[in-house]
Amino acid sequence: MKIVFIGAGNLASSVAPALQKAGQHIIQIYSRTTASAQQLATILNCDFTTSADSIRQDADIYIYAITDKNYPIDIVGSRQALHLLTSGSVPYTALRGAQHAGIFYPFQTFSKVQPVSNFQDVPILIEASDNQSLLKTEELAHCLSEKIYKSTSESRARLHLAGVLANNFTNCLYALANEQLEKADLPFDILLPLIDETAHKVHLTTPRQAQTGPARRGDTDVMQKQLNLMPQELKEIYTILSDNIIKNSNKL
Amino acid sequence: MKIVFIGAGNLASSVAPALQKAGQHIIQIYSRTTASAQQLATILNCDFTTSADSIRQDADIYIYAITDKNYPIDIVGSRQALHLLTSGSVPYTALRGAQHAGIFYPFQTFSKVQPVSNFQDVPILIEASDNQSLLKTEELAHCLSEKIYKSTSESRARLHLAGVLANNFTNCLYALANEQLEKADLPFDILLPLIDETAHKVHLTTPRQAQTGPARRGDTDVMQKQLNLMPQELKEIYTILSDNIIKNSNKL
Repeated sequence: MKIVFIGAGNLASSVAPALQKAGQHIIQIYSRTTASAQQLATILNCDFTTSADSIRQDADIYIYAITDKNYPIDIVGSRQALHLLTSGSVPYTALRGAQHAGIFYPFQTFSKVQPVSNFQDVPILIEASDNQSLLKTEELAHCLSEKIYKSTSESRARLHLAGVLANNFTNCLYALANEQLEKADLPFDILLPLIDETAHKVHLTTPRQAQTGPARRGDTDVMQKQLNLMPQELKEIYTILSDNIIKNSNKL
Repeated sequence: MKIVFIGAGNLASSVAPALQKAGQHIIQIYSRTTASAQQLATILNCDFTTSADSIRQDADIYIYAITDKNYPIDIVGSRQALHLLTSGSVPYTALRGAQHAGIFYPFQTFSKVQPVSNFQDVPILIEASDNQSLLKTEELAHCLSEKIYKSTSESRARLHLAGVLANNFTNCLYALANEQLEKADLPFDILLPLIDETAHKVHLTTPRQAQTGPARRGDTDVMQKQLNLMPQELKEIYTILSDNIIKNSNKL
């Protein structure tokens, strides 16, 4: 299938090369930013443009890998083609003017620095405006991953939120932990085995069962000592998450 | 060296077998709970007792692997031996009556279900009341790990706090994410590639640089949509962590 990517950011930089490797034809990259478009087109050895008027009309699929804030958007390229959103929180109806529209949402965190190379285990959520489009979307997803989920906008929104909790907020906690290490002149590296083990554990047991620590044990002495080490802002985060752990410990 | 373990919980169940494997002689397990003492003693093929009066007097080292709440505590066994705490937040002076006391704090999350098998990369923080004890503690630590850090109570407390943030709270976020997935009838497995990638990324870049998501992008529309999906308690967690990400994004 001939594919045009709309957008050349973190997601496109991982997904486009993976699709190409799987035998799809990425024929063009469109981005408003020349540097981004050119960089990705160079990797793919394909055409790029920064002008919406120059977007190729002969693609089978247009994949929109742009920031959620830009939706709703008028589709570009061929109206008869399949137009796919890659967002967790936008419905495909946000592609205005598409006859065939759908969702192709790979559930992973993407960055240009470290492109995701192994897509086999990356869950891909799909949805489409009609049966033929759904089959086409499924075919595209299957060439990357073994884990395809047909989804609704609602379940996708929940998954997206779960991703914010388990990725964005977890990463924020890593950053807050790093601030404590810096105060103690300890390197961030010291935390990596713990971070890895924390992630590994929930492969084997549920997160509530894996829960340990002062809040889980109800050790108010340690919690008070830790609170004394913190600025006010961190105190609030500490208290609200500890309260959640305590509340859920009682349920177990 | 002949070692007695005081406590047979999560930490002892990982550390005692690892020390034995490294050639140390675990001669006895003491725990107030018969089942725990017996279980660990069986694994180690060593003696156990539930009576403080029967604790062996001929050990070189007594390792206290008990809950922080139990400190301060009168030492058991030989007064001349080295008495080591395994806690992140208690000073060795909490071992009352010890002539030689110290800290042996392996910085990892432990559970009986999934004992830590590879200690080589687990950071161990050490501290002791005197030089000879410090050397002995260092020798013990080196037989398990290559990453030994001499620490003060203050730096250890910071590290412990960093561990609560990066392990306990991260795990709590996994649990909250799972609640969202349950509402969408999606399996927890769908989250694992993202959890793994989130942990992996901070091996390659700093957590602040790895930060992505609606808060990082300042996408208030998505944030508002996500808030609409949540109960009040989760709203508070979502808001406070998003605010922290936004504040720190401005610093980058």
